[in-house]
Amino acid sequence: SRLHTSLLKIKSQLQIPDEAVPSRPGAVPVLSGPCAQPPFIPPQGTRDHHPAQMTLLGRLLGTVVSCFKRHGAAAIDTPVMELREMLMEKYGDNSKLIYELQDQGGELLALRYDLTVPFARYLAMNKITNIKRYHIAKVYRRDSPAMTRGRYREFYQCDFDIAGQFDPMIPDAECLKIVHEILSELQIGDFLIKVNDRRILNGMFAICGIPESKLVTMCSTLDKLDKMPWEEVRSEMVGEKGLSPEAVDRVGEYVQLHGGMDLIEQLLQDPKLSQNKMAKEGLEDMKLLFEYLTLFGITGKVSFDLSLARGLDYYTGVIYEAVLLQQQNNHGEESVGVGSVAGGGRYDGLVGMFDPKGRKVPCVGVSIGIERIFSILEHRMKASREKVRTTETQVMVATPQKHLLSARLKLISELWDAGIKAEMMYRKDPKLLKQLQYCEDTGIPLVAIIGEEELKDGVVKLRDVATREEVNIPREELAAEIRRRLEP
Amino acid sequence: SRLHTSLLKIKSQLQIPDEAVPSRPGAVPVLSGPCAQPPFIPPQGTRDHHPAQMTLLGRLLGTVVSCFKRHGAAAIDTPVMELREMLMEKYGDNSKLIYELQDQGGELLALRYDLTVPFARYLAMNKITNIKRYHIAKVYRRDSPAMTRGRYREFYQCDFDIAGQFDPMIPDAECLKIVHEILSELQIGDFLIKVNDRRILNGMFAICGIPESKLVTMCSTLDKLDKMPWEEVRSEMVGEKGLSPEAVDRVGEYVQLHGGMDLIEQLLQDPKLSQNKMAKEGLEDMKLLFEYLTLFGITGKVSFDLSLARGLDYYTGVIYEAVLLQQQNNHGEESVGVGSVAGGGRYDGLVGMFDPKGRKVPCVGVSIGIERIFSILEHRMKASREKVRTTETQVMVATPQKHLLSARLKLISELWDAGIKAEMMYRKDPKLLKQLQYCEDTGIPLVAIIGEEELKDGVVKLRDVATREEVNIPREELAAEIRRRLEP
Repeated sequence: SRLHTSLLKIKSQLQIPDEAVPSRPGAVPVLSGPCAQPPFIPPQGTRDHHPAQMTLLGRLLGTVVSCFKRHGAAAIDTPVMELREMLMEKYGDNSKLIYELQDQGGELLALRYDLTVPFARYLAMNKITNIKRYHIAKVYRRDSPAMTRGRYREFYQCDFDIAGQFDPMIPDAECLKIVHEILSELQIGDFLIKVNDRRILNGMFAICGIPESKLVTMCSTLDKLDKMPWEEVRSEMVGEKGLSPEAVDRVGEYVQLHGGMDLIEQLLQDPKLSQNKMAKEGLEDMKLLFEYLTLFGITGKVSFDLSLARGLDYYTGVIYEAVLLQQQNNHGEESVGVGSVAGGGRYDGLVGMFDPKGRKVPCVGVSIGIERIFSILEHRMKASREKVRTTETQVMVATPQKHLLSARLKLISELWDAGIKAEMMYRKDPKLLKQLQYCEDTGIPLVAIIGEEELKDGVVKLRDVATREEVNIPREELAAEIRRRLEP
Repeated sequence: SRLHTSLLKIKSQLQIPDEAVPSRPGAVPVLSGPCAQPPFIPPQGTRDHHPAQMTLLGRLLGTVVSCFKRHGAAAIDTPVMELREMLMEKYGDNSKLIYELQDQGGELLALRYDLTVPFARYLAMNKITNIKRYHIAKVYRRDSPAMTRGRYREFYQCDFDIAGQFDPMIPDAECLKIVHEILSELQIGDFLIKVNDRRILNGMFAICGIPESKLVTMCSTLDKLDKMPWEEVRSEMVGEKGLSPEAVDRVGEYVQLHGGMDLIEQLLQDPKLSQNKMAKEGLEDMKLLFEYLTLFGITGKVSFDLSLARGLDYYTGVIYEAVLLQQQNNHGEESVGVGSVAGGGRYDGLVGMFDPKGRKVPCVGVSIGIERIFSILEHRMKASREKVRTTETQVMVATPQKHLLSARLKLISELWDAGIKAEMMYRKDPKLLKQLQYCEDTGIPLVAIIGEEELKDGVVKLRDVATREEVNIPREELAAEIRRRLEP
C-alpha cells in the first residue's frame, strides 16, 4: 500500500543515505529537450544535507559552539556577499577562486571566500578595537572539489578570533587550547598541532639568502610540503621561482626541523638565526607560547615545525595547523598526517587595510575544518550502522478504532500546547498497527492511544514502544507523565 | 588608558547598537583614490549582525525551531546557489529579482530566492514522497530594500513543510496550528491568520467572467490589496490587465467578504459559486479545515478572507498569511494590519515540475517571516533599554597581585577542562579592580580569585559579583561549586 511505501521511505531516511553525495560530481546535467525536465541536482562541489546528516552536523557544531562559548566568545554574522572590491587583493593567488555575482546593475558583488576578511571589515567599519567573537557560516571557493575527502565549493567555516591589543601570546595560546579541546572532545583520533611563526620563517629565508621580494611566494610554495616531498618543492623553488639552489638547500635544512622547547632553545643559540631581528622576536614569542601551553598541559600534542607556512597572505606572527594522525599500524611505522582539520594564526595588519586611517587592530584566530571532521564522523557512522534519529518526537497520538480523528486532533493539540513533541498520522482512519509501526521505524518511544473506552473514562492509554507495556493515565496528567518518563 | 577604552567598547556592545543598520542604505561607497581605502560596508539591503542582535536572533530562532521539532519535523539543508535554469520560471514576474552568479566557466548559477523551490528539487532528485521537514536559511532577492521595516535583500526564511499523499486538510490544519503557536509564544501582539483557497479564487474569477488566461495575473494583482485600496487594484485590473469593468466589479463584491464557518456555509449556498466545481471543492475543504481548527481551538484568530491571493505562482489549494494587528487605540478604531509575519499554502504541482516523469508529490507548508518579527523585538528591546548578555561566561579568573599569570593560566585551564565557561584578561598583571569591572560590564556573575595566599592554602576565593560576598573554596571543588551556584 501507499502508506507502507511511505513508511519504508521514512525508514530509509533514518539511515545516512548513500546518495548523500550526488553520484555525479563533475558532470553538468544534460538537457534532453525543452519538455523533459532534467533531474536537477545541486551545483558542482555543493550538496544537500539529508536529515541524518543534519543531525550529525548539529551535534558536531554543538560541540564547537560550546567550546567557543566556554571561552567567552560572542556570536556575530556578516552577509554571504561582500563588495567585490573589498575582497580583492586579500588572498593572493587564491583570489581567482572567488565567486563573483553578475553585474545586474548597482554594486559589484562577490561571495565571501572566508570569514576572516569580512570580520576585519566588520571591525574597521564599526571601529571595534576589542572583541572575542565566533562565527559559523558557509564560505565559497571555486576550487576543484574532492567531495569524498570533504573538500567542497560551499563549506562551513567555524571561526574563533580575538581582536585587541594585549600582552604577547596569551590569546594565541588560548586559540591552541581551543583546537586541543575541540579535537579531543570529538574523539576523531590522534592529532598533532603544528606551530610556526611568520617572523621566524621570514628571518630564516633572509639568512638563507632568499631575497625579500620572494618571501610571500616562498610561504605559499612551502605550504605544499604536506602534499608533496621536499624534492618537488625544492625544484619548484629553483625552477619556477628562480631561486639559487644553494639558498634553497639552506632552507631545506631548516624546514626539516621540528620539536618543542629544546628546538626553540637550540635555534635561539643558532649563530645566524639569532642575529636576525625578526627571527629572534619570533623565537622568543614561541618560547613564551610553549610556556603557556605547558601550563595548559597540551604540549604533548603541539610541535614547533619550521616547515609550516600556511598559504594565506595576511598572517604576520604565529601560525598553526592541526592534522589528524593515522593510527600506527602493526609494523610499527610512524604515524602519517591525513589532512588539516584546523588552522589559523595571527594577522595584525588586516583590519588596518580597511580603516581609512590605517589604524591597526591586532588579531589572532582559529578556524575549525568542520567538513573534513564531518566526513570522518559520517563514514564512521555508516560503518557502525548506527540508526540516527532525525526527529525528537516523544509521543505518537494514535487511535485504535475508526471515526476518531477528532479525538486525535483534540488530544494532540493539548499535548502540543503543553510543550510535548507529538506526531499523528495524517489519515482519517489509520490502522493501529500502522501507527505502532511508524513509532518503531522513526524511534518514537511512547504512544498515547485514545479509543472509545478511554474517551468515556477520561483517560489515555500510554504505551511504551520498547516494552509494549500499557498504562491508563488520567488525561489531564498525560503531559506530565510523558515528561516524567522521558526527561532526565 | 587603552584598557579602559576597551572596556567601554565591550560595554557598548552589550546594548543593541544604534548602528545596527548601516546609516547609509542606498548609497554606493565613494572611492577617494587608490591609496585611501573606502570605509567598506555590507552590500545594499544586507547587514551585519552584532553580538546583541545574534543573542536576540538566537532566542527567536530557538522558539521557531522548538515548535517545528514539537511537530516532528526533521532538518534538511540545501546549497545557497542552484543551477540557474532550475530556478527560472518558478516565480512568475518575481524571477527578475533573482541574483545571478557571473559566468566564470562551468555551470550557470543563481542564489536561491526561497526555500520552497529547492525543497521541491530535493524531493524530486531523491525520489522522496513523504517527509516532514524544516529548513532555516537565508534567501536572496534583488528587491528594493526597506531595512527599517525588516525588508532585506538577504534574509532568513524559516520553513516547515509536509510532503506526501494524505487525507485532506489534516497537514494543512497543522501548518496553521504552527503559525498560531509561534506567534502566540513570541508575544509580539495580536495577530490574525487570513485563509483562502486558490480553487475558490479561481472559481470566483470564473463566475465573475474573468477569462482563464488571466487567473494567475489576477492573483498577483489581487495580492496588492493589503498595500493599496480596492479602487487602485480595480483600475489596475481594468486598465493594465484589460478586464471588463463589470467582471472586475463582481470580483470586488466577493473580495470584501471575510468571516468564519458562517461565511463558508453561506458561499456553499451561493447559487453561482456552488455551481463551479473548483470553488465547491475549495469551499468543502475550507469547511473541513475550519472543523479541524475548531478542534485545535484556534478559530478565534483565523479569518476566511476572499481577498487573500498570495503572489507566488505555485500555490494550488489552501493559502494563508498571518498579519500583526495594531493595538486598538483609545478612540476605539478598528485594528489595522501592520504587515505579514507568516505565510504559506498548498503547492501540489511543484515537485512534479522537477521529476522527469512528472510524478507529483502534494505539499503544504508555512514560512515564518522572522525578519519582521526580529525588527519588532529589536525595537522593543531598544526601547526597554534591557541589557542583553552576549556571552555566557560563568566565571572570571582573576589575580589580586602581580606575577601570577601562570596561576591564572593553570586555574582557567582546569576550569575549561571541567566544562566551566571562564574568561581571564589577556594581560600579565591586570589590576583587580579592572578585572572586577570587566565582570560588571559583561554580566559575569562569579569571580575566581587566586592570590599568593590562596595558592599556598590550595583554595580559590569565589566572589559573587552582585553581592560582593567572598568564600574560600578548596581548589578541587571549585568547578562543582560554580556549577552548583549557576545551574538550576
